[in-house]
Amino acid sequence: MVLARVRGTVVSTHKPSSMEGLKLLLLEKVDPVTMKGKGDFVVGVDSVGANAGEIVFFVTGSSARMTETTKGKPSDATIIAIVDAIEKDGALTYEKARPE
Amino acid sequence: MVLARVRGTVVSTHKPSSMEGLKLLLLEKVDPVTMKGKGDFVVGVDSVGANAGEIVFFVTGSSARMTETTKGKPSDATIIAIVDAIEKDGALTYEKARPE
Amino acid sequence: MVLARVRGTVVSTHKPSSMEGLKLLLLEKVDPVTMKGKGDFVVGVDSVGANAGEIVFFVTGSSARMTETTKGKPSDATIIAIVDAIEKDGALTYEKARPE
Amino acid sequence: MVLARVRGTVVSTHKPSSMEGLKLLLLEKVDPVTMKGKGDFVVGVDSVGANAGEIVFFVTGSSARMTETTKGKPSDATIIAIVDAIEKDGALTYEKARPE
Amino acid sequence: MVLARVRGTVVSTHKPSSMEGLKLLLLEKVDPVTMKGKGDFVVGVDSVGANAGEIVFFVTGSSARMTETTKGKPSDATIIAIVDAIEKDGALTYEKARPE
Repeated sequence: MVLARVRGTVVSTHKPSSMEGLKLLLLEKVDPVTMKGKGDFVVGVDSVGANAGEIVFFVTGSSARMTETTKGKPSDATIIAIVDAIEKDGALTYEKARPE
Repeated sequence: MVLARVRGTVVSTHKPSSMEGLKLLLLEKVDPVTMKGKGDFVVGVDSVGANAGEIVFFVTGSSARMTETTKGKPSDATIIAIVDAIEKDGALTYEKARPE
Repeated sequence: MVLARVRGTVVSTHKPSSMEGLKLLLLEKVDPVTMKGKGDFVVGVDSVGANAGEIVFFVTGSSARMTETTKGKPSDATIIAIVDAIEKDGALTYEKARPE
Repeated sequence: MVLARVRGTVVSTHKPSSMEGLKLLLLEKVDPVTMKGKGDFVVGVDSVGANAGEIVFFVTGSSARMTETTKGKPSDATIIAIVDAIEKDGALTYEKARPE
Repeated sequence: MVLARVRGTVVSTHKPSSMEGLKLLLLEKVDPVTMKGKGDFVVGVDSVGANAGEIVFFVTGSSARMTETTKGKPSDATIIAIVDAIEKDGALTYEKARPE
């Protein structure tokens, strides 16, 4: 799975009926050491209610169809997790801000 | 899914009968921040009636066969959406021109 | 699908019986603007009778098995079209020479 | 399959129920000659009980679902082996330390 | 399929029972023009009895499971041919040494 930050949305009215109602997010891959964006973007289908700015990971290939949201649908990149924390070599490189 | 601009068409008379009648488009991947082409091209099967110059996204892998147009056909890149708008960090980086 | 030029052949006597009789071609990916080779090579199974020097496109992944030639066979790159012409931004970047 | 070192963990409470209980590890791809990390990270599902610091290899694509742990689950990168040794050109480039 | 040279072996005692008995080889991708290694390595499952130093090609993705050896197993890279010769633009760039 690939770590990414939700950067925005992609709007399309002209698509197959099987894609209707799916939320399409603009994702930028991130480096998990610096948490900086890599300038490499994909369009992902959201299956977890991710919001702009959040760190997520998405799954590619046929496994992108292995969620309730995307079963039988033409997705090759599906967001399956909102990330709470990334730990590398015993230290946190990322921790999600908690709502106050 | 991958954002791209329709740059032209690819013509082939010598192909399997299962590919007959499919529209084959020349796609150039685009950067969604600058909307410039990346010089990276693929041949995609059109399932949405995309036209030259339009921004689309295409789906890869086995999911490229998950449309009415490409079911059971040897496509690994199928255009499944014409993009109306791309929003990044709260601002539009792309908005499709409306017909007057 | 990926545009490539047929550059030669790959010979192997030591392979599974399911691969017997398949024509294995050496393909070099090409840039569709300049039509120059990219120095990036793959071995493809031919399903259309392609010849050395011709521009083709091949299909990857599980879709590479979606031809009569490769059904159930371990191919991840199958040539499915000999290209006649490539049109980009209204002009031809490639046109196949016709036999006189 | 791809060689990598386990560098840490990725924590997510917000994910599909099918992913509950799976251990998500932060993997850095390694060069098997120098055994140095490549700065290229993925999130992998652990199916073998790998620990931080260990060299493993993971399997991608639909084959990532071909383990007891990941059957029918949306994984595109599953750790399927802890590496004991890598031999290249007759010499070991890596040998796992044995517990004393 | 991807051309590579067998550079060595990868040893793992800690892996799923479905992987038991499979020979895991360290493969380095090669350029078919110079026949030099590209410094890009993968771990492949051997289905043809390849030996160190030999040029082979391997198949990726779900097609890596389309051999007797790897059916239903978590392989995403399976060696399916030992290469005897590579011909490019009418000349051999590689020819396997014959046993005397």
